[in-house]
Amino acid sequence: MKIAILIYDGMTALDAVGPYEVLAQLRGAEVSFVGRRQGLVTCDTGALKLLAEKSIDEVPLADVVLVPGGPGDERVRADERLLSWLRAMHAGSRWTASVCTGSLILGAAGVLEGLEATTHWLRLDALAEYGAKPVAARFVEAGKVITAAGVSAGIDMALHLAAREAGERVAQAIQLSLEYDPQPPFASGSPDKAPEALVEAVGGAFDGIMAERMAKLGS
Amino acid sequence: MKIAILIYDGMTALDAVGPYEVLAQLRGAEVSFVGRRQGLVTCDTGALKLLAEKSIDEVPLADVVLVPGGPGDERVRADERLLSWLRAMHAGSRWTASVCTGSLILGAAGVLEGLEATTHWLRLDALAEYGAKPVAARFVEAGKVITAAGVSAGIDMALHLAAREAGERVAQAIQLSLEYDPQPPFASGSPDKAPEALVEAVGGAFDGIMAERMAKLGS
Repeated sequence: MKIAILIYDGMTALDAVGPYEVLAQLRGAEVSFVGRRQGLVTCDTGALKLLAEKSIDEVPLADVVLVPGGPGDERVRADERLLSWLRAMHAGSRWTASVCTGSLILGAAGVLEGLEATTHWLRLDALAEYGAKPVAARFVEAGKVITAAGVSAGIDMALHLAAREAGERVAQAIQLSLEYDPQPPFASGSPDKAPEALVEAVGGAFDGIMAERMAKLGS
Repeated sequence: MKIAILIYDGMTALDAVGPYEVLAQLRGAEVSFVGRRQGLVTCDTGALKLLAEKSIDEVPLADVVLVPGGPGDERVRADERLLSWLRAMHAGSRWTASVCTGSLILGAAGVLEGLEATTHWLRLDALAEYGAKPVAARFVEAGKVITAAGVSAGIDMALHLAAREAGERVAQAIQLSLEYDPQPPFASGSPDKAPEALVEAVGGAFDGIMAERMAKLGS
């Protein structure tokens, strides 16, 4: 099974690496990290670079295409070449998936029209601009399109996808091998659970932090 | 706060990327991905390459040193140059941390002598060979040494570390920004919770899969 993960400057690394770690364990999985061009991409903090071993021109088709999010999503949404590649990949995919604001990129490519979808809780309303029906959920399966909520939600989504492809026993084995038995120290992982003041503080600071990260990355 | 993350061929990417995504959000965090030499390292599946932007010679000191695990740990444990670097880093660190079999590397460097520690559930017994007291826990704090269980446990550990450094409110805000509200589709993330037959199957296949991954990476 061919799995293509789009990576780009200003992406959030965990959005891609969480699902990759799950899906790469499927029997016969061939994972490609794909960039606008072959070469290094710089993640949103500026501290981590991942290699896009292939350019989009080298990967015209895959069984699974996955799009991570991050503050760099804005540039990708304005990049007709990438969007056109995504439309073509989606036309031939068995699954089209996103994590965090990766769903806004799918939206910009026209993939979410009329579908239920999710994204990072701070961006949920933006999905409607792309004709999607925003749903506050860990992940949403709508036909062959699966969108996950913010950052770490990609792990849960990928375990679900692994079960859909290879059965629950295989997905459970992958979960056990990754020791995914989460015990978060705080009950603050979603806006429903965190104290209201914290939700407001994070919401208020978020845009500024993301803009700062992108400014550091340069153009 | 300077954070040095050791990366190496045959590591498991999520071991490093989970904690990085948490710790990089601390105010003033300067994260360095550090390799035996500057350049790309290939993760255990062969599909993902990360850039070690600095060599160990360029990073003689950090506030936090973090060691991921993965099937490549064996080579690192036999690499006196890396172990000697780790000993020096540990001597000057505020926190020395590991994820998964990264703790075996800390053990080989002599860091765990007499300390309680943890690792991937399939390797727990091996900790005793390094004079550590194995504990089956999500993560274990022993003085300034924090070891986490398998792969995804690094996220929980890093949130704890963030709280110890910057207070609970900051750690909670980071958890909310990463939307770390885990909803694993299965209750199979630890050997205590998964069906016994599955635990045996994963245990039986693990060594073979890890050896196969390392063989693919070459020498």
